[in-house]
This record gives sequence, structure tokens and C-alpha cells, in this order.
Amino acid sequence: MVHDTLAWYACPVSRPSPVAREHAVSRQHDLTKPPGSLGRLEMLAIELSAMQGVNRPETRPCEIVVFAGDHGVADENVSAFPQEVTQQMVLNFVNGGAAISVLAEMNGAGLTVINAGTAYQGSFPDPVIDAPIGHGTGNIAVESAMSHAECLEALALGRRVASDLAAETRIVVGGEMGIANTTSATAVASGFGVASAAELVGPGTGLDSVGVQHKLHVVEQALARAGKQAAPLGILAELGGYEIVALAGFFIASASRNMAILVDGFIASVAALAACRINSHVRNWMLFSHASAEPGHRLVLESLDAVPLLSLDMRLGEGSGAAAALPLLDLACALHNRMATFSEAGVSGG
Amino acid sequence: MVHDTLAWYACPVSRPSPVAREHAVSRQHDLTKPPGSLGRLEMLAIELSAMQGVNRPETRPCEIVVFAGDHGVADENVSAFPQEVTQQMVLNFVNGGAAISVLAEMNGAGLTVINAGTAYQGSFPDPVIDAPIGHGTGNIAVESAMSHAECLEALALGRRVASDLAAETRIVVGGEMGIANTTSATAVASGFGVASAAELVGPGTGLDSVGVQHKLHVVEQALARAGKQAAPLGILAELGGYEIVALAGFFIASASRNMAILVDGFIASVAALAACRINSHVRNWMLFSHASAEPGHRLVLESLDAVPLLSLDMRLGEGSGAAAALPLLDLACALHNRMATFSEAGVSGG
Repeated sequence: MVHDTLAWYACPVSRPSPVAREHAVSRQHDLTKPPGSLGRLEMLAIELSAMQGVNRPETRPCEIVVFAGDHGVADENVSAFPQEVTQQMVLNFVNGGAAISVLAEMNGAGLTVINAGTAYQGSFPDPVIDAPIGHGTGNIAVESAMSHAECLEALALGRRVASDLAAETRIVVGGEMGIANTTSATAVASGFGVASAAELVGPGTGLDSVGVQHKLHVVEQALARAGKQAAPLGILAELGGYEIVALAGFFIASASRNMAILVDGFIASVAALAACRINSHVRNWMLFSHASAEPGHRLVLESLDAVPLLSLDMRLGEGSGAAAALPLLDLACALHNRMATFSEAGVSGG
Repeated sequence: MVHDTLAWYACPVSRPSPVAREHAVSRQHDLTKPPGSLGRLEMLAIELSAMQGVNRPETRPCEIVVFAGDHGVADENVSAFPQEVTQQMVLNFVNGGAAISVLAEMNGAGLTVINAGTAYQGSFPDPVIDAPIGHGTGNIAVESAMSHAECLEALALGRRVASDLAAETRIVVGGEMGIANTTSATAVASGFGVASAAELVGPGTGLDSVGVQHKLHVVEQALARAGKQAAPLGILAELGGYEIVALAGFFIASASRNMAILVDGFIASVAALAACRINSHVRNWMLFSHASAEPGHRLVLESLDAVPLLSLDMRLGEGSGAAAALPLLDLACALHNRMATFSEAGVSGG
């Protein structure tokens, strides 16, 4: 197939600035501490300097964007919670009662919540961005999650949300909510060749071992039905979810706007993987926040060559793990920007 | 030996409240998230509730206390930096240019800096608390670090600093500065039976492998000279440092005031170990912030049955790793205190 013009999601994305990175490395060496002694906080400041192309990187404004969607595969009893929880939690997000609501406020970050396709047939109140691609995906055990057209629509929704962010936004966090979406994410990760379904499957919100075995059977059924899909968009349309595809689009568009992406847990990382398979340049703009308790997450992170900052046995989604890591970015930048150099402080070098 | 009254550092310390802990566990179960899905953030909120004996734990006021001291063993060429750096860094701490200065400000924590015994013969300006036990310890390779009386004085200095903190202080961080103090800390940890010197020794501020081998030889020399010491105070007097002993006293006194102690890296953890060997009740009041890049740290943490929150390859000391973990305590408490329950938010339980 020959395109005259590349689709938006396949367009080249510029790289973080090597000059700014070099300056940042040099500054870290001059600060009053043994070289390297701030460990990964030094690397964070260096990476953010390179992404922002500046000598003094910043972490605000920061926007946390949560996409919600429902999954037909919830019919297969693959979650510990009923499907109505997706809709209820969307309201909880904007009403301030959810974990991500508290974490956004504590971090001084904005919170944008999008209905990308929940099963709820009514309309959500402001400030929810009510833009459902459909009312829940197809049950991937027996049918495609969505059409190719819907997959493109979901990607475009993510792009639109990224485009609406303030131009000066420095950091974006992508979160998700969707009952049964670890089932979809497990299938997508396996579809991308990360590992077998058996290696990736886990308890999600809290299945017992019998539940996990059943979930594995459902994922394997979905993978067998979908067959081998070569194209990333084919994998997403067959096995994905509206919120997962929208997140992938959001990541691609955020990278193309040169915003630093702080990736959350298992599902967000699967969306990040999808984004990188669609457009490999996007990887340069990603930082990885935490290792989830969901066992498949480590394999997805490895496939992205990603070493997460935190490992706190979190497994909530919503962007919560990324929000927990945001203060480390703040501290890394403050140290980089505000510490004295050896000569400024009159301290003898090593 | 029979005492009519116990020494202050050996007096029983009350336990965190089991009733408050039980209430906190129950509240975590009611919040709008799958049970356990906030991982270690849940445990932090529960532990802080128990320590504070309240339903809504708080993390401020928080005080970061940095003790500085010099080490005669610096004469043996065991550090990548010259001894004058200890004095220079004390000034850098209070002038705002050091890592811990920036981290304290970013965290809204107080910063108290104490000269517990640097080699500097002059006096330090305010706001440094200028209370040297001596001007550097003896060279442990060939002599005792300090007398038994000095060891008791250093413990008492830590107690005095803890006593001067505001009564409502919720969290304390103990940091340290002292050129060559990883050598002393390695000897103390080995003296306490954590592991052999060869297993514990590491590069400190940045020795190469030849330097580490030499440092190992010096530590082994110190251990052989000191001989087997049964009493914790004997180990500290033979092998410790003024800042390490003062930190141990600070930890004991902080626990006796029922303040939560957030322990920093290798040297602070060795001081924490000393505090627990002097008074085992103190352990109940400790949280462990990070795993340092210094290889001996993991062994010291294991000996304290401690699992640190962060692992970011930091190895600076000063309290910096603990200060990097403070935001996790803030977020844990905010989530515990502010999230909606299932019934409040109208969300269906699992």
C-alpha cells in the first residue's frame, strides 16, 4: 500500500536535544556531591533537560489524563468487579474521591477525564469529556473488539486530547479505567509478542487462582480467534479497548508535541508499547514510573527496555503509579536547578 | 552490673497503637479501590496511623536533622574527597546549596545541621548547632574512635536535638556528613555481626576497585584491633563516629517521643541498627526510605528486617534518600485521609 502522505500517527517525531543533554550531564558533574551519587535522580534531570531542550528543566504544568472504556469481555467473568464500576469511577474521578483525584491535587497536576467508550448509555456531566467511540467493545473471546475505523477514531481521540493541552505542558501522565481491561491488555501484549498469555496473565483487580486460570483461557480464546495480526492497528482493533487505543494515540501525539510522558502501570504500558510499535520515535519521550504488582507488567517493561522508578506493589491503574512517581521528577529537577556547584560553594572537588 | 535506674537510652519505648492500626486497615478496605491495590502506600498510611495513634495521619511538621563529624581514619586514604569537605559541606547545608538543602525546602521540611565533631577547630556560624564532642575521632585502624564517656556524650547530643524538636513533629529524618564515614560504618556493621568486612565494604563517595581493597584492609585492621566487643556502646566507641553515635541517640530519643523515623542510607541505617541494638523497641518507630548503591546497605537492611521504599542508586547520605521518599509518605496519608469510601461515592464493591 502506498501513501502519498503519512498518517499523523506515523509521522517522524523529533528527538530530545543532544546538546541540552550534554549540558545537563556537565552541570550534574559540577554540583556539590560525588559524581553520580544522586543516582537515577540525576538521569531524570538529564532526560528532562534533553526533552525540553533547556538547561533548567521544569515539571509543571503537568496534566494527568484518564481514559475510560468498557470491555465486552467482562461478560466472561474476568474481573472481580461488575462493569457498572467503570461509569461509577468516572464520576468518582471528577468528584475528587478516587485515588487519582487525590494524587492529582497533591501533585498540583491537572486532571482530565475522558469517556472513551464506557457501557453507560447516558451522558456524563462536565468536566468529563464525553466522547465515546462506542458503548463498550465487542467481547474479544468471540468477536473483534472494534472495527478498524473505530480504532482510528480512538487514536484520534487521544490525539485531540493531547492537542487541547496547554502548549507549555511539561509532563503528561496517561491513566485508564475499564473493568476487564487487564484481560484486553494481556491479549494485546501477547499479540505484540511480548510473551505467552500464560506468562502475562495475572489477577487484575483481585481474581483468585481459579479466576486467573479462567482469565487465561479467555485470553487464549481471544488470541486464537484473532489469529496472527501483523499490523499494530490490527492487533488493537481485534484485542484492544477504546481507552487503550486512545491512550496510544495520546502518547504518540504527546511525543510529537515534545512533552515528557510518564507511563503508569500494566495497561498504560501496553498502550505505550502499542504507541511505540505504531511509531518507534515515541519511545524517546517516555519515562516509566513504576513496576506494578500485575505480573505481566515486568515483561511489558522489558520489551520496552524500560526500568521503572518505583516498585511499591501498586496495581490500581488510573495513572496512580505515575502520579506517585511525579514528586521524584520534581525533586530531580529542583536538585539540578538549585544545588550549588563546587566553585559556587567553595567545596573541594574529589 | 545492677542499675537502680535504667540509662535513658535503655528505657522502654511504647509501641505504636494496635487500635489505630486496626482502624486504619479497616478504612483502607473501604476506600474506592480494589483492596491492596495501593500496595505499600496503604501500609505506610497504616503504620503512620498506628505511630500517631490517630485515624487521619499527618506528615508535617517534618524535621531533617544532619549530624556532621570527622574521622581520624581519613588519614588512611579511604575516601575520594579530602577531610576539609566535611566542614565545607556543613556550610553548604545551611547556605542552601547542598542536595539536602534543596530537598528539605522542596518537602517543606525543617533542616537542622549539627557539628557533632568535625576536624574544624573554629566555630560554625548560626544556624549550625555547634556542639562538637571532639575534633574528629581517633584513627580506628590504630586506636579507639572515642572514649566511652565521649560515646555517651554523643548519644546525649542526639537526644538533646530530638528533645528540642517541636512537640507536634510527625516525621524525623536523620542524615549525616563525614568524610570517611562509610569506613567507620562498615566497621560498626561488621562489629554488630551483620556480615564480614569483605561483604560490606564498598566505594563510598567513589573509590575505584584498588581503593575499595585498601579500604577493606583498613576496616579489617580496625576490627582486629578493636577485638570482639559484646556491648553496643563498646562497638560504637571503638569503631564509630561522633555523627553516627549522635544519630543513634537521636533515633532512640525520637522513638521515645513517638515520632516516626524515616531512615536514610548506609550510614544512617548503621546508626539505626546501633539504636536498635541499644534499645530494641526503637525498631517499631522506623520506616526505611531507600536502598543505597553502597553494597553493604542491603545487608544492613536485611539485618533490620527492613524493606526500603525506593531503590534509585542514590549514595549521597545527608538524609537525601529519605528526603526523596518523603513525598510517598505525604501521598500515602493524603490517599488514606481524603479518598472516598465505596458508600460515599456510590461505587459497587468487589
